[in-house]
Amino acid sequence: MSDRTQMDPSEYSDLATPARTLLGPGPSMVHPRVLRAMATPLVGHLDPYFLQIMDRTQELLRYVFETKNQLTIPVSGTGSAAMETAVANMVEPGDRVLVCVNGYFGLRLAEMAKRYGGDVRTIIRPWGDVFTASEVKEALDAHAAKVVAIVHAETSTGAEQPLDEIAKVVHAEGAILVVDAVTSLGGMPVRVDDIGIDVCYSATQKCLSCPPGLGPITVGPRAEEALRQRKIQVASWYLDLSMVQRYWGPERTYHHTAPISANYALYEGLRLIAEEGLEACWERHRRNAEILWSGLKELKLSLHVPREHRLVSLTTVRVPEGIDESGVRRQLLEEYNIEIAGGLGELKGKVWRIGLMGFSSRRENIALLLSALERLIG
Amino acid sequence: MSDRTQMDPSEYSDLATPARTLLGPGPSMVHPRVLRAMATPLVGHLDPYFLQIMDRTQELLRYVFETKNQLTIPVSGTGSAAMETAVANMVEPGDRVLVCVNGYFGLRLAEMAKRYGGDVRTIIRPWGDVFTASEVKEALDAHAAKVVAIVHAETSTGAEQPLDEIAKVVHAEGAILVVDAVTSLGGMPVRVDDIGIDVCYSATQKCLSCPPGLGPITVGPRAEEALRQRKIQVASWYLDLSMVQRYWGPERTYHHTAPISANYALYEGLRLIAEEGLEACWERHRRNAEILWSGLKELKLSLHVPREHRLVSLTTVRVPEGIDESGVRRQLLEEYNIEIAGGLGELKGKVWRIGLMGFSSRRENIALLLSALERLIG
Repeated sequence: MSDRTQMDPSEYSDLATPARTLLGPGPSMVHPRVLRAMATPLVGHLDPYFLQIMDRTQELLRYVFETKNQLTIPVSGTGSAAMETAVANMVEPGDRVLVCVNGYFGLRLAEMAKRYGGDVRTIIRPWGDVFTASEVKEALDAHAAKVVAIVHAETSTGAEQPLDEIAKVVHAEGAILVVDAVTSLGGMPVRVDDIGIDVCYSATQKCLSCPPGLGPITVGPRAEEALRQRKIQVASWYLDLSMVQRYWGPERTYHHTAPISANYALYEGLRLIAEEGLEACWERHRRNAEILWSGLKELKLSLHVPREHRLVSLTTVRVPEGIDESGVRRQLLEEYNIEIAGGLGELKGKVWRIGLMGFSSRRENIALLLSALERLIG
Repeated sequence: MSDRTQMDPSEYSDLATPARTLLGPGPSMVHPRVLRAMATPLVGHLDPYFLQIMDRTQELLRYVFETKNQLTIPVSGTGSAAMETAVANMVEPGDRVLVCVNGYFGLRLAEMAKRYGGDVRTIIRPWGDVFTASEVKEALDAHAAKVVAIVHAETSTGAEQPLDEIAKVVHAEGAILVVDAVTSLGGMPVRVDDIGIDVCYSATQKCLSCPPGLGPITVGPRAEEALRQRKIQVASWYLDLSMVQRYWGPERTYHHTAPISANYALYEGLRLIAEEGLEACWERHRRNAEILWSGLKELKLSLHVPREHRLVSLTTVRVPEGIDESGVRRQLLEEYNIEIAGGLGELKGKVWRIGLMGFSSRRENIALLLSALERLIG
């Protein structure tokens, strides 16, 4: 009770957010139309109007995932919740899981698979490298796995993993391919059906120009079959796709109250991509990345990932000798209101991470960042 | 690829939400200041400004929970995710869990505890009843439990569970008390420290006037100790409090990207309660509930829960003989833009559920609903 009487509401001032240019690994900047969508008054989670928005959102998600998968929905949590949804639903206790680890999010996949009782084997590459199909084949020959998990766009390293040949190898062994597309969906081709990805998940706060809070996921026929064949229930009730899909499907069975506003936002973010055109959106991401790379080269900075595997959505820049890695980031934030990020894990202190995703991927942001960097380290 | 070229963006029209008066069991109406907060441009999840908002939000959450618990945070998911956080962190495989079931959310607690390996025992009361401390004591005498879970405000029945004596019984047996306050927090006293609730969770879309998407939770010293004493890791990585608290605590260790906008909204919703004053906010909920109850009585409608255990936030009304339960709801929605809900489980088809929570708890909403109901069934 004493807490309550001591409360002085005047100590809690109105939101006064600094106006940041967000060029880190996400959240990226939210498009003004998406912000407006967030401010839309709510309807109920079973309102006929909301059910209609759910259907349209699923169609738009299929468009960006490039899939016809029926089970394509936004998980009611961030990208990590979508990752956990993939793992929790595909892995039963004792199942062999092969995880390809070449960065922070591969490690996280392995950790989650262990927690859900998976018999986890990993193959490892230095952070910034990618895997070849023959490496995956060798590992599968050594320990046959039910599930193979790999990261398409490693947010911690800036490397893009080619998937076509790996998908063939995985399917030849009868395994299920789980792909992390958190930092690629919307910013570059993910080609779920073309490649044959069985489970693919992402997040809203990267190339989809939305705030964090939802984790889009798509589940193909092989994975749906595995879901039906499960022997024991998914440990997580909240992330159990067999229940969640009855809310998103024709049954409309109440499971949990959907985050209405976040779904409004996602609908608007996906509409923006449809209006721009998916290929045009990829092309914008690529064009802007190349402008950034040229500019960084002019500043004599070198990039961590070779060009052929470099993500257009996230660039890792080697911190030059004698430069204070976190000091530069602090100055960018304090003096220029620009956010970029440092490295994680093996790359901590060694790289900066610059994201050009969704509404952040604009010429003016690159010009600003390069100009500020030149003043600080040029 | 064919999907992509067939995409016609003009088929996806601008959001055009009907203007609903939300008087169901949640989401309730979002305060205009909270909607504005949702539209605030983002900063990063490790931005010094956001860290400050996180600290202030924790203080405000402690105020509404009436607790000094350090570990008081919003879970990055809906109320169901907060429920699962409580269960997943408190229950280890093989732990005996006693769940008091007198409605839908008690059933859900039991289901989650089973999924996390709990040895679940239930005591059962008809939907709308509440438990006595001696019933809980008897059950604990019969099967000593590590955790006792009970619902403070059963959203499916409209009953308020008294907790003071039950807390004493639970603690006398050395067990941990987990309480669901999804439909009470902010609308009536929850008194976490006074009662000695060990884990208490809620949701943002009920009495806090925010959209769904976050699940506030508070964890007391006994429960924190149980967390430290765990023998095996929490199966859910996303909801593992030992990791989440290192992001919300002084370490600020990255775990997952917090839903920035939803946290802005929660901060604003809590600020509104602090400005109104917590007691005044409870008093508004009570006063408006009584106006509703009188009005329903004038319409010759009877209430499912006796007055002494009736929730002020959610009222269950018995559907009179010969009245089409879902037809009335449909007419309310289509002709008056008012949302109320039907019953769940045992009460399906038998009751309407009327919520007066947060910004929905206003005189004008009650006048509108009573007037519309009179025209439809009077």
